[in-house]
Amino acid sequence: MGERDESGRRGFLRGGLAGAGLVASSGVLRASAAPVAEDAVRPPWMTTPGQAFTNYGQPSPQERAVVRWISANRTVAGNGVSWTPLQDLEGTVTPSGLHFERHHNGIPQIPIDQHRLLIHGLTRQALTFSIADLARYPIRSRILFIECGGNSNAGWHRLPQQTQAGSLHGLASCSEWAGVPLALLLDEAGVDSSASWLIAEGADAAAVQVSVPLAKASNDCLLALYQNGERIRPENGYPLRLIVPGWEGVLNVKWLRRLEVANQPVMARNETARYTELLPSGKARMFTFVMNAKSVITTPSPGQTLHGKGVYEIRGLAWSGRGRIRAVEVSTDGGAHWSEARLQEPALPLAFTRFRMAWEWSGTPTVLKSRAIDETGYVQPERSALIAERGRNGYFHYNAIACWQVDEDGEVTHVYS
Amino acid sequence: MGERDESGRRGFLRGGLAGAGLVASSGVLRASAAPVAEDAVRPPWMTTPGQAFTNYGQPSPQERAVVRWISANRTVAGNGVSWTPLQDLEGTVTPSGLHFERHHNGIPQIPIDQHRLLIHGLTRQALTFSIADLARYPIRSRILFIECGGNSNAGWHRLPQQTQAGSLHGLASCSEWAGVPLALLLDEAGVDSSASWLIAEGADAAAVQVSVPLAKASNDCLLALYQNGERIRPENGYPLRLIVPGWEGVLNVKWLRRLEVANQPVMARNETARYTELLPSGKARMFTFVMNAKSVITTPSPGQTLHGKGVYEIRGLAWSGRGRIRAVEVSTDGGAHWSEARLQEPALPLAFTRFRMAWEWSGTPTVLKSRAIDETGYVQPERSALIAERGRNGYFHYNAIACWQVDEDGEVTHVYS
Repeated sequence: MGERDESGRRGFLRGGLAGAGLVASSGVLRASAAPVAEDAVRPPWMTTPGQAFTNYGQPSPQERAVVRWISANRTVAGNGVSWTPLQDLEGTVTPSGLHFERHHNGIPQIPIDQHRLLIHGLTRQALTFSIADLARYPIRSRILFIECGGNSNAGWHRLPQQTQAGSLHGLASCSEWAGVPLALLLDEAGVDSSASWLIAEGADAAAVQVSVPLAKASNDCLLALYQNGERIRPENGYPLRLIVPGWEGVLNVKWLRRLEVANQPVMARNETARYTELLPSGKARMFTFVMNAKSVITTPSPGQTLHGKGVYEIRGLAWSGRGRIRAVEVSTDGGAHWSEARLQEPALPLAFTRFRMAWEWSGTPTVLKSRAIDETGYVQPERSALIAERGRNGYFHYNAIACWQVDEDGEVTHVYS
Repeated sequence: MGERDESGRRGFLRGGLAGAGLVASSGVLRASAAPVAEDAVRPPWMTTPGQAFTNYGQPSPQERAVVRWISANRTVAGNGVSWTPLQDLEGTVTPSGLHFERHHNGIPQIPIDQHRLLIHGLTRQALTFSIADLARYPIRSRILFIECGGNSNAGWHRLPQQTQAGSLHGLASCSEWAGVPLALLLDEAGVDSSASWLIAEGADAAAVQVSVPLAKASNDCLLALYQNGERIRPENGYPLRLIVPGWEGVLNVKWLRRLEVANQPVMARNETARYTELLPSGKARMFTFVMNAKSVITTPSPGQTLHGKGVYEIRGLAWSGRGRIRAVEVSTDGGAHWSEARLQEPALPLAFTRFRMAWEWSGTPTVLKSRAIDETGYVQPERSALIAERGRNGYFHYNAIACWQVDEDGEVTHVYS
């Protein structure tokens, strides 16, 4: 623990700027170093006692603009999404109050004592569990991202949508989930050797159903009771959520009430009409469960403004459903040159990984890009490559490199480049 | 990522119970396996659309009992503490709304645009920074516990206080903190070679001042702007907090406004009259910065009840200001035998580490204990050993092994054993 953190000024400039082939001019990081009458003036808020204790804290009212942006379906009650404001956050954990939401028919209010989980189908025995029953089982906890299969789908549009980074890519969030390993309960129910799928159903009015291959269900899935330390919040599945690490969000069924062991998928609307792609060949791409590697620069990003030339820190998030992020490369010249950003340790598998890189902006217009590379060697593609592979009928599973243009006034916009 | 999670039922029983020298009777983990009319009855909350989206989520109203317990000083406005309800939480991250609080004169309401940090004293130049200035600097993020030096001080009482685990040991919480490495700014200010201390002052009405050895300040301290992804909440220091990893909580100055480089400590009340101990020798123990290793069993814990004999999972938290937790040992027979609990990976240095162990309760009264061992080899002491070392005048820095008695009815109480 004793070693000096390698994040000193010299490391910052050497690591980041040297990699980018730039030289930092002296003093670009210097703050307003005006002579000060040291400690002469105490601000008014030091002259009177402050506010009282609270049982449960809330963000400062000054941060009221940092909220989920809601995109609700006007014709179907409780159908829509809300977006995590990635551009306003730092670190890797998403506060639970800002975790993205996708609802098909609103948020059910479930009395925790009345909720039951049924495991049945091709099993030796059917089992039902109350939440209190489940809490007796072993618990495991893990920091994991969840990403909606429809995240970033504005990227399929012909023209780049002008909105904030979180409203483009914020159907992805990262929490510490804690719950019972699903494998334990499947083992107890006794899965028949003919079974190959697990059909999960939520207790909302939409009765969302999805199919999960049994090999995944028996591997690393969790029946989560807790999110970021406390009980899961209502919009994220209170009191029970299926967690399918690294796989598309819809599989992470909220308000989980039923798990049916089966020998074929349920072929529900959410896995046939939605969360699929019509390929150039005319065939549909279905059951594409694993979320491919993605990265997004959160600072600077659209809607933000750089105040003059000088050194900035480019910051962003990367994640992959295939495992750890091995590297994130950043280009500050529209893709002509790439430099490796610094990854914040620990870079956990299937979790948000924060990357940062120093950048000296010359004051001339340019385009910023980032691309994630995961431990399998998968490299986040350019948009043109993704379209060449998938065609123009895509709606889901968009993970191409995002491009932010910085104009001469320091304003940042979304471009295709 | 493909390997099977080792947390299956057999692993649970073999790892935990074998270690404890117990044998699990078949079926103790089995839930209510009554025959069910499969999926016949849908609960009422599936028959109507649920509630709407929210911009910022809150816990379920059903969890309203999971709050910070406030212990305020009746004679001094805004002076007191609030406790994290450790017994109700899982995983390692403390939700920001439940992070413990220690205030000396209430929570100041600071306009973020008006807040300034002054660095001065034995420096080449005095510097002032707005929050916007600081946000231009490199940011680093890290999951860290903060523990008040007065945490667990009920342990010094002659009789064991009867209250919940969090109200005994919950002046400790764990968050992901993100901010500017302090070393960067000290480097920029230019620290004089004669300097050895850094005096930090908060912008509350108490103007809390503490002294931090410069070697620590230049090592791994952060000027935190973010907690668990979002801006720090008011009661935790909005908009700026000094983070001193692994050292006692009072050093982690909230509402940080001033850092003075000096060649001696400030000898403020908080480091002379408080956060010190009168030793048996008659000397005072001061500047005992590093928080020693501690652990606490959160489940089962006082106020909870076991419902009959059978297998339970013992769960708890361990942490050390000296680095990583290497092991946590659990005794289910009052200290006669100890078994190694399973640590939830990743066990990060200077962060809460979750431990869990299966235990088959025979239904007879017993005492549960846990002891943390950190990477330096330090072993959490029994209470008698701590008292032998420190005497009976202690108030701060209590880290002895906690003992929970399970009586024949399954009720859990706090005992000295």
